[in-house]
Amino acid sequence: MSNNTFGKSFSLTTFGESHSTCLGGIIEGFPANIKIDYALLESELERRKSSSPYSTPRVEEDKVKFLSGVENDISLGTPISFVIENKNIKKQDYDNLKTLFRPSHADYTYFCKYSINSSSGGGRASARETVCRVVGGSLAKQFLSQFDINIESEIESIGRYNYITQREEVEEALKQAHEAGDSLGGVIKCTIKNTPKGLGEPIFDKLSALLAQAMMSIPSAKSFEIGDGLESCKRFGSEDIDHWNCDFTTQTNHSGGVQGGISNGMDIVFSVGFKPIASIQRIRAINPQGEITEIENNGRHDCCNLFRARVIVESMAALTIADLIKRAK
Amino acid sequence: MSNNTFGKSFSLTTFGESHSTCLGGIIEGFPANIKIDYALLESELERRKSSSPYSTPRVEEDKVKFLSGVENDISLGTPISFVIENKNIKKQDYDNLKTLFRPSHADYTYFCKYSINSSSGGGRASARETVCRVVGGSLAKQFLSQFDINIESEIESIGRYNYITQREEVEEALKQAHEAGDSLGGVIKCTIKNTPKGLGEPIFDKLSALLAQAMMSIPSAKSFEIGDGLESCKRFGSEDIDHWNCDFTTQTNHSGGVQGGISNGMDIVFSVGFKPIASIQRIRAINPQGEITEIENNGRHDCCNLFRARVIVESMAALTIADLIKRAK
Amino acid sequence: MSNNTFGKSFSLTTFGESHSTCLGGIIEGFPANIKIDYALLESELERRKSSSPYSTPRVEEDKVKFLSGVENDISLGTPISFVIENKNIKKQDYDNLKTLFRPSHADYTYFCKYSINSSSGGGRASARETVCRVVGGSLAKQFLSQFDINIESEIESIGRYNYITQREEVEEALKQAHEAGDSLGGVIKCTIKNTPKGLGEPIFDKLSALLAQAMMSIPSAKSFEIGDGLESCKRFGSEDIDHWNCDFTTQTNHSGGVQGGISNGMDIVFSVGFKPIASIQRIRAINPQGEITEIENNGRHDCCNLFRARVIVESMAALTIADLIKRAK
Amino acid sequence: MSNNTFGKSFSLTTFGESHSTCLGGIIEGFPANIKIDYALLESELERRKSSSPYSTPRVEEDKVKFLSGVENDISLGTPISFVIENKNIKKQDYDNLKTLFRPSHADYTYFCKYSINSSSGGGRASARETVCRVVGGSLAKQFLSQFDINIESEIESIGRYNYITQREEVEEALKQAHEAGDSLGGVIKCTIKNTPKGLGEPIFDKLSALLAQAMMSIPSAKSFEIGDGLESCKRFGSEDIDHWNCDFTTQTNHSGGVQGGISNGMDIVFSVGFKPIASIQRIRAINPQGEITEIENNGRHDCCNLFRARVIVESMAALTIADLIKRAK
Repeated sequence: MSNNTFGKSFSLTTFGESHSTCLGGIIEGFPANIKIDYALLESELERRKSSSPYSTPRVEEDKVKFLSGVENDISLGTPISFVIENKNIKKQDYDNLKTLFRPSHADYTYFCKYSINSSSGGGRASARETVCRVVGGSLAKQFLSQFDINIESEIESIGRYNYITQREEVEEALKQAHEAGDSLGGVIKCTIKNTPKGLGEPIFDKLSALLAQAMMSIPSAKSFEIGDGLESCKRFGSEDIDHWNCDFTTQTNHSGGVQGGISNGMDIVFSVGFKPIASIQRIRAINPQGEITEIENNGRHDCCNLFRARVIVESMAALTIADLIKRAK
Repeated sequence: MSNNTFGKSFSLTTFGESHSTCLGGIIEGFPANIKIDYALLESELERRKSSSPYSTPRVEEDKVKFLSGVENDISLGTPISFVIENKNIKKQDYDNLKTLFRPSHADYTYFCKYSINSSSGGGRASARETVCRVVGGSLAKQFLSQFDINIESEIESIGRYNYITQREEVEEALKQAHEAGDSLGGVIKCTIKNTPKGLGEPIFDKLSALLAQAMMSIPSAKSFEIGDGLESCKRFGSEDIDHWNCDFTTQTNHSGGVQGGISNGMDIVFSVGFKPIASIQRIRAINPQGEITEIENNGRHDCCNLFRARVIVESMAALTIADLIKRAK
Repeated sequence: MSNNTFGKSFSLTTFGESHSTCLGGIIEGFPANIKIDYALLESELERRKSSSPYSTPRVEEDKVKFLSGVENDISLGTPISFVIENKNIKKQDYDNLKTLFRPSHADYTYFCKYSINSSSGGGRASARETVCRVVGGSLAKQFLSQFDINIESEIESIGRYNYITQREEVEEALKQAHEAGDSLGGVIKCTIKNTPKGLGEPIFDKLSALLAQAMMSIPSAKSFEIGDGLESCKRFGSEDIDHWNCDFTTQTNHSGGVQGGISNGMDIVFSVGFKPIASIQRIRAINPQGEITEIENNGRHDCCNLFRARVIVESMAALTIADLIKRAK
Repeated sequence: MSNNTFGKSFSLTTFGESHSTCLGGIIEGFPANIKIDYALLESELERRKSSSPYSTPRVEEDKVKFLSGVENDISLGTPISFVIENKNIKKQDYDNLKTLFRPSHADYTYFCKYSINSSSGGGRASARETVCRVVGGSLAKQFLSQFDINIESEIESIGRYNYITQREEVEEALKQAHEAGDSLGGVIKCTIKNTPKGLGEPIFDKLSALLAQAMMSIPSAKSFEIGDGLESCKRFGSEDIDHWNCDFTTQTNHSGGVQGGISNGMDIVFSVGFKPIASIQRIRAINPQGEITEIENNGRHDCCNLFRARVIVESMAALTIADLIKRAK
């Protein structure tokens, strides 16, 4: 199982750099005889695009083409491969970066690793690859709908403000970031409802551990909490216990639906923190000789990537659960 | 790769339930011709035992016996298997739990998954299995020492108190928990020094993602943050950038030594939050028929597991880095 | 690692059914900074097509398009994905087979497994998928050329006749098969020269075992022998020993270059037997109700597939060795 | 998945060198709630020992001790680990081999790979490790018995003689080999009855391919054939077809129960050729300086290993089928 693959029984393998002609992937383990829901796929891809006046001005068409594994819209049970064309590449935006490493970007670390710099846009480090995760996640969601498993997400905070209770402060901060060519991050909370009991594999493939890997693999992710997370860590044990009801549900859900790494039937609740992206207007980049220059960073940038991150978080959750369900059979 | 295995090129596979005669494991990918440092191994296992008057009264001898892969104390390059005997089992402590599921424990979820309840001590869910991680982590540390890679940890907080600046409050809370038969959790911070640049694999096996899986797989882990974690998520992008020095180090280290999932040579810094364990004195357990009874929980319990958790966090970090180094070759 | 993937460190994952618009794959682990040899790739694909008046009348263009992992003809070190269009599909050839299972074909077994019959051409069972193996094998050969490793193959026998010493009988039999709409199989022998010593992994991933899996995965493969194979099994031990020369080469090579599953530096020699394909002119097929009908089998058929099988055998050998070399680093 | 592991969902990982204190392994994926059949296990281990006056004089007790995964003789669904003590080690038999590489043995290739020579008995290359395969195979057979799947084997030939029709010649050859301190190999045929239809995974994990890897991983294996094997390769296609009966069985079984790599419900039939072992009385070994000496080879040797190989072939078949069944769920 390589680093380009997520999942063992229901898996997604992706390929493509942000400025190659295509991105794409292969989904393996999708059962045969399921009618593909293209409408769901399209809406999921749409959610990944700009949804706020302050989000990315970069608009991709994101038309998915299935190359195999589907015949007459029904899955064959064989690997489903897909490609998505990159139609809106502006290579020249990145021209001044050819021999420069931007701060807090992956340019330098990729150079150290591969001794070659895919000339534009961060290559395989770019968040563009997440479009493939959404395609895989959409198929995973279709698979999960047979079991009535439902995945929802919401923005918990942007910057230092709670998104629900401090909406005015949030709007003001976003406006400030946009005008200054700056950026903001925040926290996304995700809930998985109707998970079967007993899902997850002990020791190293605990449900919480696999969700953590899935979420922390998303570009810009900096934190992961399950259940009450850091809040639980502040309590006494007596305050943190989820007491039983007679029907095996619990009165509270501090644990977030997981015990000993295995689901107990309650909602699985977790949150993911995203740092503000480093693609801001003015940056001080370094060249291979160690010389530092201030440049204008002209690529298209999000001032806040949380709006598009929700569907990526849900997609990774769907892939994680789909894989565990197949493994549990 | 199963759930009992961590790592792909340098891997640890474990076995054993908390009340079986033995626990143990197999370490694969440990190079040939290395002299095994038994002194380090012993001290690591010692660190895992009680180190505070408020920690566990349960003392295991933890004598490790190597069964293969080592000859005249030199590694052969073949799988290194080991066993550790469980000498201090008090099965009767758990007798009243034979048909009861404790709240916020793995009893119920394991029962849902396996339709059998390993009669004592949480079976494979118990934290006893972590002793195998320490053996594997110790060998990983020996492997890493060739590269001068150094792993250190410290307690950041216990309960709601910072461990350094609020030591009195911490001591008071621990005393309170111990006397009440209650428990406390907290946060452990870990630093990995001298990591080579370029470590980590893009997309799904990002260094941050693999560390997250490793840490969240530890019993009681509830949160993971890398670099400044949630603090980064509160800032503007301009406040969070790690600016370059001419020698490719950075002036700050908000990112925690990782960019685009790959190490940049700066210290890798992360923290793990542990919830207070649920093995407190009085608990209200449920039986398979849905009847709830209050019982005395007589197993030996830690009122705070953070003291022993440090070496487990370091061991998982060592295993993660050792595996990535072998994969990178 | 799924069934669609071959290799662990240098791997090929394929997708595509014989009558979908495309076939393709992803090659992972191909190092960065290597100039892609398109000429070699084209000639390898050419070898896979008809090379004898008695071979397949079905001619595909087999134009490979790389979608990622290559920039300005240089490998980036990221996954290399490729597609090949199926331009010469004659779906109607297979129309009368929509609800029929041909004897000694995979129609019935695929139906049992997937409860759906990819309507034409055997779906993913068809030998058409081998074109992807040749693309992967070509890149593997390029990787191996850095080490001067050379892979050659030859036809050992066709039907019951030795291909070298009985060329007239072979020609006669081929003619007979072609005219009768019948088919012939045979044996291909392959030699890998300049393999480094110490290649292969003990116990389950012995070089001989991985080659066996690789070869037996090729459609129509029925036998695998390494070194003198069945001839060795007939001898006394004293007759089968490869005696030493002072420079650690051996006087004979009965073992075929492998001892204890690991290469010893001598040529690796093995052979693969292919059955005659079952796509002959008249066949008695069965429908799902158990009714048997004789039909004309109108798809394009090979009367002898050995001529095209050589490059597939070499490709699988290249993939096996490339993977073991990367794993051994 | 490492080289020490066979199988993906039902797997066996082994450890131990031939002259370490123990050998052993971990079986993962064995379902919970199955009563372990120790009687079957004992008889399988017994079959692996000497069963002919001409076979090995080395007798091990082979007492298996389960360390985890079993409680009150019932499987828990957690990893089942086991050890077997090596009680009958005669290290001095191999003393004169400390700095010598025997011809047609793995001494030299292991030295090339690991730069260390496990001092006695071929280390991990020795056939002693096969005892672990028999333990795993025995548990796999128990798992398969729920489905009425039955595995049988028989010796097809010893040396150049058919074992059934030429019994006198066989006995004479064995006597000759024994008296001369020489050895003989041969061919074992195996049949798997009542396999469910649809077992096997397309492309690279074809049932035939996985069986081939399994068998060729057994020490001394030199050939693998499925169905009529090389005989099929000699025929015309029309002669090799398995024609339908109305109930979807076939009139003949040239294919050996597999089509397109997937089982069709007919008996799976395959054969494995074993070379005569090279541990004969007088051998000409080489030292690291390239000097060749003739020595007496005093280790205990089999003059024919086929008698003990039958249960190893069956064990590997059981592991292969068990894994495919679990993967197919």
